[in-house]
Amino acid sequence: MSTASTTAAAAPATPSGRKLKAAILGATGTVGQRFLTLLAAHPFFTVHAVCASPRSAGKPYAEAANWKLAGDVPEGMSSLIVEPCTVVPGSRLAECDVAFSGLDSSVATEVEAHIALAGIPVFSNAKNFRMHPHVPLVVPTANADQLAPMVRAQLDRGANSIFAKDATSPPAQPKAGGYMVTNSNCSTTGLAVILRPLIDTFGPIDQMSVVTLQAVSGAGYPGLPVLDVFDNVVPYIGGEEDKLETEPHKILGKVDAATGKLTHIHQSDMKVTAACNRVPVLDGHTLNISLRFKNRDAVPTPDQIASVLAAYTPPPADVLSKCPSCPAHAIHVASQPDRPQPRLDRDRGQGMTVTVGRIRECALLDIKLVTLTHNTVLGAAGSSLLNAEVAYVQGLLKARD
Amino acid sequence: MSTASTTAAAAPATPSGRKLKAAILGATGTVGQRFLTLLAAHPFFTVHAVCASPRSAGKPYAEAANWKLAGDVPEGMSSLIVEPCTVVPGSRLAECDVAFSGLDSSVATEVEAHIALAGIPVFSNAKNFRMHPHVPLVVPTANADQLAPMVRAQLDRGANSIFAKDATSPPAQPKAGGYMVTNSNCSTTGLAVILRPLIDTFGPIDQMSVVTLQAVSGAGYPGLPVLDVFDNVVPYIGGEEDKLETEPHKILGKVDAATGKLTHIHQSDMKVTAACNRVPVLDGHTLNISLRFKNRDAVPTPDQIASVLAAYTPPPADVLSKCPSCPAHAIHVASQPDRPQPRLDRDRGQGMTVTVGRIRECALLDIKLVTLTHNTVLGAAGSSLLNAEVAYVQGLLKARD
Amino acid sequence: MSTASTTAAAAPATPSGRKLKAAILGATGTVGQRFLTLLAAHPFFTVHAVCASPRSAGKPYAEAANWKLAGDVPEGMSSLIVEPCTVVPGSRLAECDVAFSGLDSSVATEVEAHIALAGIPVFSNAKNFRMHPHVPLVVPTANADQLAPMVRAQLDRGANSIFAKDATSPPAQPKAGGYMVTNSNCSTTGLAVILRPLIDTFGPIDQMSVVTLQAVSGAGYPGLPVLDVFDNVVPYIGGEEDKLETEPHKILGKVDAATGKLTHIHQSDMKVTAACNRVPVLDGHTLNISLRFKNRDAVPTPDQIASVLAAYTPPPADVLSKCPSCPAHAIHVASQPDRPQPRLDRDRGQGMTVTVGRIRECALLDIKLVTLTHNTVLGAAGSSLLNAEVAYVQGLLKARD
Amino acid sequence: MSTASTTAAAAPATPSGRKLKAAILGATGTVGQRFLTLLAAHPFFTVHAVCASPRSAGKPYAEAANWKLAGDVPEGMSSLIVEPCTVVPGSRLAECDVAFSGLDSSVATEVEAHIALAGIPVFSNAKNFRMHPHVPLVVPTANADQLAPMVRAQLDRGANSIFAKDATSPPAQPKAGGYMVTNSNCSTTGLAVILRPLIDTFGPIDQMSVVTLQAVSGAGYPGLPVLDVFDNVVPYIGGEEDKLETEPHKILGKVDAATGKLTHIHQSDMKVTAACNRVPVLDGHTLNISLRFKNRDAVPTPDQIASVLAAYTPPPADVLSKCPSCPAHAIHVASQPDRPQPRLDRDRGQGMTVTVGRIRECALLDIKLVTLTHNTVLGAAGSSLLNAEVAYVQGLLKARD
Repeated sequence: MSTASTTAAAAPATPSGRKLKAAILGATGTVGQRFLTLLAAHPFFTVHAVCASPRSAGKPYAEAANWKLAGDVPEGMSSLIVEPCTVVPGSRLAECDVAFSGLDSSVATEVEAHIALAGIPVFSNAKNFRMHPHVPLVVPTANADQLAPMVRAQLDRGANSIFAKDATSPPAQPKAGGYMVTNSNCSTTGLAVILRPLIDTFGPIDQMSVVTLQAVSGAGYPGLPVLDVFDNVVPYIGGEEDKLETEPHKILGKVDAATGKLTHIHQSDMKVTAACNRVPVLDGHTLNISLRFKNRDAVPTPDQIASVLAAYTPPPADVLSKCPSCPAHAIHVASQPDRPQPRLDRDRGQGMTVTVGRIRECALLDIKLVTLTHNTVLGAAGSSLLNAEVAYVQGLLKARD
Repeated sequence: MSTASTTAAAAPATPSGRKLKAAILGATGTVGQRFLTLLAAHPFFTVHAVCASPRSAGKPYAEAANWKLAGDVPEGMSSLIVEPCTVVPGSRLAECDVAFSGLDSSVATEVEAHIALAGIPVFSNAKNFRMHPHVPLVVPTANADQLAPMVRAQLDRGANSIFAKDATSPPAQPKAGGYMVTNSNCSTTGLAVILRPLIDTFGPIDQMSVVTLQAVSGAGYPGLPVLDVFDNVVPYIGGEEDKLETEPHKILGKVDAATGKLTHIHQSDMKVTAACNRVPVLDGHTLNISLRFKNRDAVPTPDQIASVLAAYTPPPADVLSKCPSCPAHAIHVASQPDRPQPRLDRDRGQGMTVTVGRIRECALLDIKLVTLTHNTVLGAAGSSLLNAEVAYVQGLLKARD
Repeated sequence: MSTASTTAAAAPATPSGRKLKAAILGATGTVGQRFLTLLAAHPFFTVHAVCASPRSAGKPYAEAANWKLAGDVPEGMSSLIVEPCTVVPGSRLAECDVAFSGLDSSVATEVEAHIALAGIPVFSNAKNFRMHPHVPLVVPTANADQLAPMVRAQLDRGANSIFAKDATSPPAQPKAGGYMVTNSNCSTTGLAVILRPLIDTFGPIDQMSVVTLQAVSGAGYPGLPVLDVFDNVVPYIGGEEDKLETEPHKILGKVDAATGKLTHIHQSDMKVTAACNRVPVLDGHTLNISLRFKNRDAVPTPDQIASVLAAYTPPPADVLSKCPSCPAHAIHVASQPDRPQPRLDRDRGQGMTVTVGRIRECALLDIKLVTLTHNTVLGAAGSSLLNAEVAYVQGLLKARD
Repeated sequence: MSTASTTAAAAPATPSGRKLKAAILGATGTVGQRFLTLLAAHPFFTVHAVCASPRSAGKPYAEAANWKLAGDVPEGMSSLIVEPCTVVPGSRLAECDVAFSGLDSSVATEVEAHIALAGIPVFSNAKNFRMHPHVPLVVPTANADQLAPMVRAQLDRGANSIFAKDATSPPAQPKAGGYMVTNSNCSTTGLAVILRPLIDTFGPIDQMSVVTLQAVSGAGYPGLPVLDVFDNVVPYIGGEEDKLETEPHKILGKVDAATGKLTHIHQSDMKVTAACNRVPVLDGHTLNISLRFKNRDAVPTPDQIASVLAAYTPPPADVLSKCPSCPAHAIHVASQPDRPQPRLDRDRGQGMTVTVGRIRECALLDIKLVTLTHNTVLGAAGSSLLNAEVAYVQGLLKARD
């Protein structure tokens, strides 16, 4: 990433003098493939272990993975032998300093708990622990300031007390140092990024309507049969509306800096209605959003909304400025009347910038606008990675040897 | 149409013993082509004149039109010579009993006024006269009961007093018998159809949010460059949100049966907010709708909504039952959780049925649901045609000789 | 079908005074669904049994099938209970007069053999028996004249001697009257239709190059993941090139009218090279074909080719004229320079007509041209059905009771 | 480009100590936009003038151009004022050292001649001068060795004697130093790249069949209406088959190093038949190619073809190795059985690498294979740019002041 390389220069030298060894859990899936691409030449991390289901274990990565991203498997990763997602002596996974999870939710609970109990911090894109009270749910350009206090609380409490019940065969002697950080559902991501500066500036949102037009890559591979989405819209995505109606309340909650305890926004204080549609677009989730602010005395104008979004620098700014994956602009406000558009705007900021447009008044609530987020970058692997960079810069990720 | 053929048998014999001669205005365009297809074997009407811009005039239709519908120009119409849209002695247009207009809005005002002044009733898909106080705006499976009283009022008043100011060169001697009927914008159509039974049963809607996912055929031909919509969503369609926020107030208004005077629903009595998106789908507009009823004492449940929609028979039922293009069901309520879908549902009822699904509670308003309407059939030419059939059955369209 | 209804009137009355009872094998798959649609109001046949894998057996059809065609399951078929593909006393399958097979090739061999041994004629779209020496491979608008002699030869020889070795548990007492008819691979179909009149008129083809652009529906459901074909071409379809390089030699071979023995064209007498591509098109296979005739003395001009194709009436004309699914024109020669095109031409003749265009000279061989065939109608279920109609008209299909 | 930055370091310092000033002709079109993107941070060239039709002249670039590439207008170029394509004193165009032309063929002849006569070397993507006997037609990874001798011959002869007749108002005092270099049609490009090593190794090709599946971006913007290519294939692209059947004979001809005189391959020595199809793919032209070698004694096997293509380094290697846009591999031979595919392979080598796969025997000719080329990068602007880099490295492009 271009901003990456610039900023990376300013990043703290790795304390141990080497890059941290990263494991990719679910490495053969679409999110796993994206992790490999994003980590191909990363200044902090190097892919050390590629882990997947027993079916793939033992094969070279290039053979096990049905590579579906443009181009080829990044150099040096093709011949890595896929390992199972189990920390056993002698495995490369056991040598890792951090794990990135692109696991399917059907297996993520026990695997991720297992990894955390083995002392390896997990940055997960799976949904399983998102709403867990001790696990931060971080959209890095929205609420990265929640990460450190909540991780420290996990470290204080010990992964064993938090995750042992979830791992099928918890180790007799859990290792210290493990914890878990999750990022949000791909459709929630862009919403959270714009809500943060709006709430910080104009106060609470009390009503919100969100209608999504989501890309097919969000369903992974093989995902959707072409006959389901060709020349078609599917106005239903299982579980998605629930996530959109609940995750924002956690992401935009308040963390007690001392205890790491998070207080969600109450459901009745921010009512959200969501309707989710799958559209024939490869990458990029478009959201039609309407908002109503609680404070009726000073309802912002569209111009004020645009100014605040355009000027937004996410907190903690001093930390994020040292993170290679942090985009120069968390939000881009498009000036053209017909933007954002997925094909034209999804790659802005290397897929880490949310593009906003069509900010106008709403006849029912206060403001209508449209957001566009790259669902497999900022909406998935990119958030996990930036979260890990934040942890790294804050001293919460280190070489374990 | 299958229902057509059955019903048509019951239709009244043409009084004069012949089919009415129809002119297609804007015959070479996409709406015009659809008119030709729908009229290919019609029991009431026969295509007698194909009219278009001076550029096309004088050519055989098959040569003038860049035919873009599946299959070929209907038999017998290929060799019709295109005429200009001007009623002059000796023209086939002058011999017509009815005109269907698929004209572009840039020319529709003066041409349609000219035709009406020449004594030929015009059924128009153009937007120009939709909001005119004397012109009915009729979605035939929503408010066909407004057609007769408003047409009679036009006939009483005389087309000259209504349209003379719009025609560039009004005839010295306008002929009697001309009038105008319009149908709604393609995205408004499906909305109007479901609102009618809901309002009739549960009382006024006071708030409504509509987010559209509209097919590319709505923009006509050449319409959208492929580079604009390929792998893309365009969250903007010029003028469309305005139409959605104003047309329903007229369509669902009240007509005085005696005077034909129409009273719109007041904007403040039914607040509508609309957001319109173009998606890469060929035909079929999908609407994500949320509704709030004014009556707070007996807010209907999703099941009650479904029952009312499924049981709906549009008025005037005795007239519509004699119309060949009237579908057996104005509304189909889909039982599957992921429907309606454009590719699977748009052709239901030969494109004249609105499919509704995902009827559920809304966290902000009362009810959320999804509708699907074939935008170039019920949403355009099909409505004009069914409106004309209604007029015919009610004795308002006859052979002029 | 419009030609259908007209022609059907002229069809011979069913000898037993009732429609023949048809079983659909593989009824829940995409070809099976197409069979149900084509048989919805058929004058000769009525769907009596819907048969599928044990997983679906016992469920009502509407529940067992993931219906993916436009519209709904045809009336009356939704509640049919799915049966396994085994003829047992008391089953509806056992009562059938004919079976249409849309089975997957992984199970077609033993199931179809089982059905034929049970005395039920099988019209199969599966590839398993296509190259079997006793089984006709019939593209109904190319070589329907091969059907009767080859079927009679099967009946003479007895299904038991032909198919017993293929059925896993052949019945102790096979019933008489069973036989099998196959139709060709979807990409071969259009090729065969145009080759027949060309060879009949201009003599043998000695070289042929075929490059296909095939629709996604050819892969069935779930078939291709959207990520594989979205904004993409896949220049490989397993086994397809082999079929194109071998099936034409059988279809265009000669049958001895007395013995029913078929002699293939020798591979070295008609060299075919094929390259197959999957393209993002829903229905309709486009073929770019180049041909060289063996007779070098009178190589036809493009105009001569066009005339012969346009004038073609497939044999046996007197039989086909009584078949409801036979199109008015087996071949349509498009006059426009940029046709055929899948979206515009695939439904011609209700999907049973092959459209041909761009007939021009070739710098290497003699003639280049483009064909378009609806791959799931003429290229699959439609051919099976028309083959059965041919058998019916020729007295080879009757009520079995 | 990654290889770019590495290699660029090794490039010769600009003699005058500054980057060369580049004009983009047709800057607002799709090829023009691609030029701006490719030149955004180029080590040799800087965009100095953006030139377009009088309609756009005088406006800031960002306003004049309907930007259709992903992301935004490159920084610094948005506010450049568009100039007409005329060299007048005081214009920025007059100060340029080189011009890149993305002009439409309807105007390219006279404008490009005018620019060359003004002493500015023109690297053009337009077709107008491709077959001109004095103008090199260079696919930079196929025949860059033709560039220098043919440019030197132009310089010796003087642009005035070559181009004066083409310019509408040739200057009274043409300036020295102007010349013209063209690159090939987008569909010819990939073909030429693979033919060069095959001919160099195995001798002449005497027969060749090419069927293309071409991306929609090849038609520019607005280009194709979406209704023409949605769910469709168009088996016709005006003029394209002619280009494919004639351009290779020039590209693969022989240049006399002393005189710069080019001898084409005779049409009868390399017979080419082409069939061109437009498919719904954004970028990337897929070619199905069959080849027959003249030398029948040692026809290469598919493995030998693969080895030669994989090992190919285009000439002149020492020059190209100093060009920032030259890919590390001119050809990539895919090992997977179903590649190349446009979406997955078009961006290889930043769009400058041709991917080849499915190398196999052909039943008619010798070898069949599939190539994939990014039509708007290597197939258009990327070739013009690399050609200019070749000229620059060879001392044929310099600062003019």
